Amino acid sequence: MLEQPTLTFGEYTLVYNMLSFAIASMIFSGLFFVLSRDRVAPKYRISLVVSTLVVGIAAYHYLRIFNSWEAAYMITDAGNYIASGKPFNDAYRYIDWLLTVPLLVVELVLVIGLAKDKQSSMLTKLVIAAFLMILLGYPGEILMDDSLFSMRGLWGLLSTIPFIYIVYVLWGELGTAMADQTGKVQILFRNIRLLLLATWGFYPIVYMAPFFGWTGAESEIAIQVGYSIADVLAKAGYGVMIYAIARAKSEAEGYEVGQSTVSA
Amino acid sequence: MLEQPTLTFGEYTLVYNMLSFAIASMIFSGLFFVLSRDRVAPKYRISLVVSTLVVGIAAYHYLRIFNSWEAAYMITDAGNYIASGKPFNDAYRYIDWLLTVPLLVVELVLVIGLAKDKQSSMLTKLVIAAFLMILLGYPGEILMDDSLFSMRGLWGLLSTIPFIYIVYVLWGELGTAMADQTGKVQILFRNIRLLLLATWGFYPIVYMAPFFGWTGAESEIAIQVGYSIADVLAKAGYGVMIYAIARAKSEAEGYEVGQSTVSA
Amino acid sequence: MLEQPTLTFGEYTLVYNMLSFAIASMIFSGLFFVLSRDRVAPKYRISLVVSTLVVGIAAYHYLRIFNSWEAAYMITDAGNYIASGKPFNDAYRYIDWLLTVPLLVVELVLVIGLAKDKQSSMLTKLVIAAFLMILLGYPGEILMDDSLFSMRGLWGLLSTIPFIYIVYVLWGELGTAMADQTGKVQILFRNIRLLLLATWGFYPIVYMAPFFGWTGAESEIAIQVGYSIADVLAKAGYGVMIYAIARAKSEAEGYEVGQSTVSA
Amino acid sequence: MLEQPTLTFGEYTLVYNMLSFAIASMIFSGLFFVLSRDRVAPKYRISLVVSTLVVGIAAYHYLRIFNSWEAAYMITDAGNYIASGKPFNDAYRYIDWLLTVPLLVVELVLVIGLAKDKQSSMLTKLVIAAFLMILLGYPGEILMDDSLFSMRGLWGLLSTIPFIYIVYVLWGELGTAMADQTGKVQILFRNIRLLLLATWGFYPIVYMAPFFGWTGAESEIAIQVGYSIADVLAKAGYGVMIYAIARAKSEAEGYEVGQSTVSA
Amino acid sequence: MLEQPTLTFGEYTLVYNMLSFAIASMIFSGLFFVLSRDRVAPKYRISLVVSTLVVGIAAYHYLRIFNSWEAAYMITDAGNYIASGKPFNDAYRYIDWLLTVPLLVVELVLVIGLAKDKQSSMLTKLVIAAFLMILLGYPGEILMDDSLFSMRGLWGLLSTIPFIYIVYVLWGELGTAMADQTGKVQILFRNIRLLLLATWGFYPIVYMAPFFGWTGAESEIAIQVGYSIADVLAKAGYGVMIYAIARAKSEAEGYEVGQSTVSA
Amino acid sequence: MLEQPTLTFGEYTLVYNMLSFAIASMIFSGLFFVLSRDRVAPKYRISLVVSTLVVGIAAYHYLRIFNSWEAAYMITDAGNYIASGKPFNDAYRYIDWLLTVPLLVVELVLVIGLAKDKQSSMLTKLVIAAFLMILLGYPGEILMDDSLFSMRGLWGLLSTIPFIYIVYVLWGELGTAMADQTGKVQILFRNIRLLLLATWGFYPIVYMAPFFGWTGAESEIAIQVGYSIADVLAKAGYGVMIYAIARAKSEAEGYEVGQSTVSA
Repeated sequence: MLEQPTLTFGEYTLVYNMLSFAIASMIFSGLFFVLSRDRVAPKYRISLVVSTLVVGIAAYHYLRIFNSWEAAYMITDAGNYIASGKPFNDAYRYIDWLLTVPLLVVELVLVIGLAKDKQSSMLTKLVIAAFLMILLGYPGEILMDDSLFSMRGLWGLLSTIPFIYIVYVLWGELGTAMADQTGKVQILFRNIRLLLLATWGFYPIVYMAPFFGWTGAESEIAIQVGYSIADVLAKAGYGVMIYAIARAKSEAEGYEVGQSTVSA
Repeated sequence: MLEQPTLTFGEYTLVYNMLSFAIASMIFSGLFFVLSRDRVAPKYRISLVVSTLVVGIAAYHYLRIFNSWEAAYMITDAGNYIASGKPFNDAYRYIDWLLTVPLLVVELVLVIGLAKDKQSSMLTKLVIAAFLMILLGYPGEILMDDSLFSMRGLWGLLSTIPFIYIVYVLWGELGTAMADQTGKVQILFRNIRLLLLATWGFYPIVYMAPFFGWTGAESEIAIQVGYSIADVLAKAGYGVMIYAIARAKSEAEGYEVGQSTVSA
Repeated sequence: MLEQPTLTFGEYTLVYNMLSFAIASMIFSGLFFVLSRDRVAPKYRISLVVSTLVVGIAAYHYLRIFNSWEAAYMITDAGNYIASGKPFNDAYRYIDWLLTVPLLVVELVLVIGLAKDKQSSMLTKLVIAAFLMILLGYPGEILMDDSLFSMRGLWGLLSTIPFIYIVYVLWGELGTAMADQTGKVQILFRNIRLLLLATWGFYPIVYMAPFFGWTGAESEIAIQVGYSIADVLAKAGYGVMIYAIARAKSEAEGYEVGQSTVSA
Repeated sequence: MLEQPTLTFGEYTLVYNMLSFAIASMIFSGLFFVLSRDRVAPKYRISLVVSTLVVGIAAYHYLRIFNSWEAAYMITDAGNYIASGKPFNDAYRYIDWLLTVPLLVVELVLVIGLAKDKQSSMLTKLVIAAFLMILLGYPGEILMDDSLFSMRGLWGLLSTIPFIYIVYVLWGELGTAMADQTGKVQILFRNIRLLLLATWGFYPIVYMAPFFGWTGAESEIAIQVGYSIADVLAKAGYGVMIYAIARAKSEAEGYEVGQSTVSA
Repeated sequence: MLEQPTLTFGEYTLVYNMLSFAIASMIFSGLFFVLSRDRVAPKYRISLVVSTLVVGIAAYHYLRIFNSWEAAYMITDAGNYIASGKPFNDAYRYIDWLLTVPLLVVELVLVIGLAKDKQSSMLTKLVIAAFLMILLGYPGEILMDDSLFSMRGLWGLLSTIPFIYIVYVLWGELGTAMADQTGKVQILFRNIRLLLLATWGFYPIVYMAPFFGWTGAESEIAIQVGYSIADVLAKAGYGVMIYAIARAKSEAEGYEVGQSTVSA
Repeated sequence: MLEQPTLTFGEYTLVYNMLSFAIASMIFSGLFFVLSRDRVAPKYRISLVVSTLVVGIAAYHYLRIFNSWEAAYMITDAGNYIASGKPFNDAYRYIDWLLTVPLLVVELVLVIGLAKDKQSSMLTKLVIAAFLMILLGYPGEILMDDSLFSMRGLWGLLSTIPFIYIVYVLWGELGTAMADQTGKVQILFRNIRLLLLATWGFYPIVYMAPFFGWTGAESEIAIQVGYSIADVLAKAGYGVMIYAIARAKSEAEGYEVGQSTVSA
């Protein structure tokens, strides 16, 4: 069990508010994906469905993390927060990723828009890599007491191999796809490619926070705040960008809102 | 009543998180089946309805199992989890299977797509076998105290007879059906056939976990984690594969999303 | 007030799980009737509406019975369940039947499909008989303490008279209706006729459980488990069979799913 | 404040179950009115909307009465129910009638189907009479302690004057309307006229229960059970009969289910 | 803080029931406005939307007032109700009026149906007056302890100035509008004009209740019951009357229910 | 941690009621945006979707602020409110702004209606400025104890730079856009420009409340009441004005309610 550091009011509240921020981001971006479904042509709607699932699953897990955080601490008369005896269950994040990372990979592959047969084989490889990446990172996150500290590094290293593979493949394919586009859509592809690097690159940095010499409270806060921001960008942010691409393509293909939407 | 072993923090949390994982998988795969209904031709929608029922029923039972697990344990000052006095009700799984396994058999028979009259008689036989399988497995699961330990083996053996019958028939029929298909649909049939073997084959292994020399905590964890993974694959996973087949067939038949979906 | 017998863990849990089984069956069969509404021709949809009401009402009452069962018992250190002091309210079943049995009779009469004028007069007679049957059975169920034990038999006997009348009439009419059908629909009529006998025949047997020499726990469990199974078959099971008949007739009349369903 | 009599288990439970019966009747008849809306021609749907409001309002109040009943009693070790100290709020019934009786009058006047101008003036008179009837009955219900016992009779008498006026007018108008109908619709009009007399005639009898020499428990039970049955018949029962008339008229006018229902 | 008078059972219950009456009126009139939307021509539907908002906002606030009332009192052994220590928050009414009175003014101006440019300028003036009226009345309501008693009169007087302005303008405009109508619509306009005077005239009378020599309980009850009745008439009642006008106009313009309602 | 001042009943209740006012405003303006969607042409509906998200997010945060306010105080026997020990979490406002201010900027830029390419680059700049503005204001809000008091001024000053940039750009662009409009739409543009200045200008004034010599209770109340009013105007108020513009443009373009709304 991870030792929970004592936190000041400001530290406790920062994490608390970032978790609430993530909940609100996930719920209302999901509402946006549902309300905007009829603004993209029918063939692109599957992307919005996947985005809705991703942020829905994340909202479920952030609600659980939030409740666990609230239960894990109690305030002292001096205004500090100490461990209440109920452990903080951070592993919810890994359960969340187990479901959402493969879905995010599906979203990106759908956006790249390969030929059907190439798409299937790539999806299979990337989803397996995503599972490996998360399952290998989990033990390192859990086993963070002193004697096993170096183990965190080891598991993190192993987890990095499939991680690099996924980012490498997606970066390359997004580049190829970008080359086929023009104008606004091309810029959106460039942006989504950069966002891929920025958000995915964020996770290993947060993971390694304990190695930066930070201990106790700083480490805890860096992990929680970092993961929350990365999750919001990689889930809600990605969903909005993919909506923007689908919308731009729908417009380019002459789709008008209010047309052929009887299926809604 | 089953003796509840004392668990470490990591052991307790692993089961806890796997149960939460199952809940999230069931709820959000159900959401997917509902949101994707208009992506398959009307005649295939009954399969998505059955998938929705299966994961809905499973979500209901996993929520109950989760609550029972949480109530059955309490944390000690040393950070271990001991029995709280409220028994852990694992039998919910059997109630779940009593409803979902016949529905899963219906799903598979619908996918195989036999002629109407052959379909009816096969369904009747398989559903009866499914009921037998579950009713015979139940006593072995419940009666696991020492004196009756060998009984678990006996009930398990009896339960295996209808189990083998079902898998044998479905394997054969899926093979015949696969032979009639081509291209992507054929591959999907091959995959669903393998998934049948993989998930259904998982259950007897988990059931026999206590016989592998594992005692107490290991046995408990192996059962809970194993069943959770098997259930997610056999319910949410199956539903997604059957959706993929229905989608591929709909496309092959010229169905376009947004067309003739006034019925939604 | 009925004396509540002390139950072993297995006995208590069996009833508990059967009640939960009934809840899940009722809720998800209701979901099925709602989701499948557009698979039968508009003129048959009233049957699905009645089925939805039946299982909805039953779900409401089983939730109340379940909560009453949970509140009525408490666990001892030895792992047995003893009366908590809050009485178990079994009379909910009779309230349920007061509403659902007349609706089930309506369902069957609709399926038989008589001419309009004959239908009205038969419905009136059968619904009155159904009310009588339930109102006469109620006192026998409530008054089960020793001195009034023989009264249970008397009320049961009185209740049997309208019971036999209903079953006799429906059996005969279903037979006549069956003779007019062909093929698959005829087989479904034969099955529904047999299910009528099987489920309705179940109730008096369960009612008489205390007379079979069983006392205390056995009697209690026989009543609860028996009624739960009979209710699931007679409500959810019946609804599914009536759906099957409506679907078969819709197909025979050339109705296609997705056609003329703007009314959904 | 009304003295609450001590009740046996059977007495307490009878009222408890009748209140639950009323709740279930109101909720599920409301569900029926919603689900059946497209089975009557558009011009008759306003009647189903009013029926839905009536049973919705009644469900709201019966839930409150039920909770008040549960809070007002507690069980003794001997198995009897005594006053808990929280008073039983029976006045909810009058609040309910203040809203539902005018709506029931609207329902009946709509069914009678007068010319527009006559309809308005009759509605105004009847609704005012309905308000008077309820406002005059309320003090008699509340002030039932010994010294004011005779006052109950006086208020009851005053309340009877508008009561008789309403029943007299509706009876007459229903008779005139009945004479214009033929066949099935005429029979339904005859039945609804009889139901008017039966249900409305029930209320004054229940109101006078305390004068029949019954004291304490008997009086309390007679009032609660009587009102519950009368309410179910006069609200859910009436709604079903008015649906039947609307359905019969729709059929007679050639309306087919699934036709012109885009407005649903 | 307002001193809470001790109340008899009858007094406490009267307020309690009137608050519950208001809740039920608001919720179910809102349900009526939603269910009846397709019974008026599309151009009149904005009025029903505004009515829905008005009663929705009022339902929200009456639920809060109801809960505050329940928490503010506790029953004594003698059956009286005394202050519990949690203050009764009556100011919710002013918050409610701050939102609903401008919306009611919008409703009336929409019904009057002026030319677009005149409508805008009148709306601006009336809404500002409405805000002034409520903001000036608030301090008088809150500051009711002895020393500031005369202040209540002063604030009330100030609040009356915009009040008279609003009523004067609306009365005049409704009169002009009435003159342009004929038949049933003209009568409805006359009625709505009278209801305006009756309900709006009610508020200052209730406000001044403490000046009528009533103290303590009587004053409290007069305020609560008076405001509740006035609110139900001015919100739910107004909404129903405006629906009646919209319906009558729709019929006069040849609109048929079920026509052009695809937009619902 | 911010020292919570002791409040009188009136002071505590004023904040309490303003927070409830904000909740009701956000929820019911959101309901209005949903119910009015079909009153504007399809191309303008995205604005209503964004308005719905803005008030939805604000409702979520005001509910949390309201609960935190209620938990942070307890009443004394003397009727005053003192700190309960649970800190009041005011930082929710910043989390709210982090999500809603960029969305409000999006709303305004959509209304201005620039050419697509100019729109993208302006949006990017303004959204970044909005994030900066909020992130720089946050430390000043949190760190308000004496020793850091001057820091509040510093952070406030830094935050003002992006603030002025946003207001300057929007003011200019709204002016340019206004010049292109005529009649009613031009007036609406003028009003929205003034509302921009009024609401956005309000925030820095509230922020600086502690510098006006107010201490303790006055400062606290000024901040809470001020922010609540500013939020209601800037979110619900803005949404209504943008609806008015969209409605006026839709009418000017010949859009009729009930036309081409199948997509709803």
